[in-house]
Amino acid sequence: MLEKIKGPIIIVNYKTYLESTGKNAVELAKKAEKVYKETKVYVGVAPQLAELAEVAKSVAIPVFAQHVDPMKPGGYTGHVLADSVKAAGAIGTLVNHSERQLKLSDIEQIIKIAREHDMVSVVCANNPRVSVAVAALEPDMIAIEPPELIGSGIPVSKAQPDVITGTIKLVREVNKKVVILCGAGISHGEDVAAALKLGTQGVLVASGIVKAKDPYAIIREFADASLK
Amino acid sequence: MLEKIKGPIIIVNYKTYLESTGKNAVELAKKAEKVYKETKVYVGVAPQLAELAEVAKSVAIPVFAQHVDPMKPGGYTGHVLADSVKAAGAIGTLVNHSERQLKLSDIEQIIKIAREHDMVSVVCANNPRVSVAVAALEPDMIAIEPPELIGSGIPVSKAQPDVITGTIKLVREVNKKVVILCGAGISHGEDVAAALKLGTQGVLVASGIVKAKDPYAIIREFADASLK
Amino acid sequence: MLEKIKGPIIIVNYKTYLESTGKNAVELAKKAEKVYKETKVYVGVAPQLAELAEVAKSVAIPVFAQHVDPMKPGGYTGHVLADSVKAAGAIGTLVNHSERQLKLSDIEQIIKIAREHDMVSVVCANNPRVSVAVAALEPDMIAIEPPELIGSGIPVSKAQPDVITGTIKLVREVNKKVVILCGAGISHGEDVAAALKLGTQGVLVASGIVKAKDPYAIIREFADASLK
Amino acid sequence: MLEKIKGPIIIVNYKTYLESTGKNAVELAKKAEKVYKETKVYVGVAPQLAELAEVAKSVAIPVFAQHVDPMKPGGYTGHVLADSVKAAGAIGTLVNHSERQLKLSDIEQIIKIAREHDMVSVVCANNPRVSVAVAALEPDMIAIEPPELIGSGIPVSKAQPDVITGTIKLVREVNKKVVILCGAGISHGEDVAAALKLGTQGVLVASGIVKAKDPYAIIREFADASLK
Repeated sequence: MLEKIKGPIIIVNYKTYLESTGKNAVELAKKAEKVYKETKVYVGVAPQLAELAEVAKSVAIPVFAQHVDPMKPGGYTGHVLADSVKAAGAIGTLVNHSERQLKLSDIEQIIKIAREHDMVSVVCANNPRVSVAVAALEPDMIAIEPPELIGSGIPVSKAQPDVITGTIKLVREVNKKVVILCGAGISHGEDVAAALKLGTQGVLVASGIVKAKDPYAIIREFADASLK
Repeated sequence: MLEKIKGPIIIVNYKTYLESTGKNAVELAKKAEKVYKETKVYVGVAPQLAELAEVAKSVAIPVFAQHVDPMKPGGYTGHVLADSVKAAGAIGTLVNHSERQLKLSDIEQIIKIAREHDMVSVVCANNPRVSVAVAALEPDMIAIEPPELIGSGIPVSKAQPDVITGTIKLVREVNKKVVILCGAGISHGEDVAAALKLGTQGVLVASGIVKAKDPYAIIREFADASLK
Repeated sequence: MLEKIKGPIIIVNYKTYLESTGKNAVELAKKAEKVYKETKVYVGVAPQLAELAEVAKSVAIPVFAQHVDPMKPGGYTGHVLADSVKAAGAIGTLVNHSERQLKLSDIEQIIKIAREHDMVSVVCANNPRVSVAVAALEPDMIAIEPPELIGSGIPVSKAQPDVITGTIKLVREVNKKVVILCGAGISHGEDVAAALKLGTQGVLVASGIVKAKDPYAIIREFADASLK
Repeated sequence: MLEKIKGPIIIVNYKTYLESTGKNAVELAKKAEKVYKETKVYVGVAPQLAELAEVAKSVAIPVFAQHVDPMKPGGYTGHVLADSVKAAGAIGTLVNHSERQLKLSDIEQIIKIAREHDMVSVVCANNPRVSVAVAALEPDMIAIEPPELIGSGIPVSKAQPDVITGTIKLVREVNKKVVILCGAGISHGEDVAAALKLGTQGVLVASGIVKAKDPYAIIREFADASLK
């Protein structure tokens, strides 16, 4: 799957906002798909689990789960099986988002299970040292969230470049091929452009799109900026 | 919703078995629906989240989530919103299953959120004293799991009656109206009959049905027994 | 143990403040002991685990752990065994503090283990409904924390009386004998007096004493107020 | 502290066995100290928290906590502060033992807090890939637990050498200086000798010593073997 994704990728994390819940889930995905069709920039969406199947059926863009559990099939009431989200149409999953942090050994297990199911693992890392540890686990993608960008609200385009390049350098020392996304500090098209210029291959965004008045316009702005 | 459910109820917990994952989810639900149509005994199903919407769309029997989180809409990546599972067609949710145990204050919060969303809360309790505490939280239903039945593999019909009646008595001291399900020791129709005779209003079952060679036959056996 | 405690009790939760860490732990306990000797009001302390033994050896007042785990002796690296804290001199333990919330079934198990070790369980409850559930588990003491007092900073003496009396009434419906402490809204002596007058048997306090300029003076003020 | 430890090190994890609880804690530490005095092999002990201070006061060998939390001083009832265990005499702490697994970002935080307190971090890793991730976090020591040795009960001296050397090779690719301990498969002196010969700098052991009829004899056997 992953090898089909050429060029930059934009992943929209739906989180659990009302704006992306229920019927809103497919509507938002259709806007992302429209931008993909217009620009050929890969735009993926990560809806909640209960909307995942409907979203995957409605659009031809990559759909991700927001979380899967490290379990294999069995008696695990209330857990999220990779087999289940894959059957529903997900091509991958977010892992260890800062709002859903996991034990180290579970992250390792989930990456392994994702690979066995031919699913893309996108593992989030909340600081440079954690990013290196995640890279060592050999996921498909890593979403770096520099604390300077989360804490301060400073956008990538205004931040010190080494906030991004420093983490990339550390990650590359242990992993040459992992796809690196910028997971924080993306508010405008210029932030997307800056993130890519600094060496990332895409962005992971949430409220900036989900809670926007005109999500289509923002996704389009991001996609256009990623082509500059 | 709850008031519409008259007579005994059988809830089939899909857990995360392969036999209830993907396409199997709807197939199993259709068997449960068939039994409901034939017997008028309420049979509900609790599929995994990614199959929940498709199941709810395909059958006219009560569909439950296996778990929801105590969050309100917001930035909670990877969590399960009541709004989302309700929009997908769930009329209620299991809570605190022994395979997905929760903090006390989260159980209380989930019961409250379920009520606010007009959803049925089915809270599991793994011993008599815990059952009383759960009853004090005033959920709609409580699924009692006497340790004597879990640990030993003894079915309800062969167990000492006070294993069931003792817990019911304790629960009724603090809560007169909660619907009580028997959540362990149900292997054959005679166990369903025994559980109801001892004072419960239904059963919560899983592998006995999901992993059966002929799930329809077992559900039908259980439904028939519940009418005796 | 519990039966020896007559009259109101004041428990000082050390939390993990620097002011109560290391050598400060015994110093603070000696101030509490001084007040006990002067007033005969029971003052207990709940230091961190690493200081617990030294504190228990140094003073003749009740010493509590801040937490124990629901494990029996075995291979549980990094957990807190009731046997260990009892051997170190603790006569009881806090359970389920809002900063260390536990699964319902673990709370039940800890209360049981405490009883088997002849230790006093003091279970915290963060709202009225949770308080009733805790009471149903039959601990020795329950520390109620009305959300109105936590959220707003309103002291007990200025709060609507039914914030306290309402919870006490609910608790007494399921448990006549549990000792009820007020675990929030205690800033001055008049709050202690108000809490006792409204029907509690003591208070659980932390920063108001630990971070006070003169902890002895505050403990003494609280003890004096409890005798009015 | 770490630089003072020359040559191989044996760390005895007390876990929460009764044999290492209460008065047994100091007795066991004195046996470890005796071996250290006789052989000059570094033997450290990791007692439970409530016995830690008394152990540290009674012996002149390295004492470790079994766990600390990633918190700084503040309102964290029931948690374990690095400041507290250090004041009690610990020179370091185990982190992420397989019986007390932690979130990735917490492991990173604890390593950092340990360093700030001049304490030795000994992070456990339950398979080769997790070991590399831990090494990337730059702890002082890493205790590797090859699954082949845990699952099967095969001792190091009988195992395929690459079970050990394979993990060491992976770890050294990202971290040249971390001290590597063998944390599984150590039953006899020959296992200690084998682990050191294969490239580790010490061992982390538990029940083999704590539950032995003559713990002194086993520690001495291990120490002697480490000198071969």
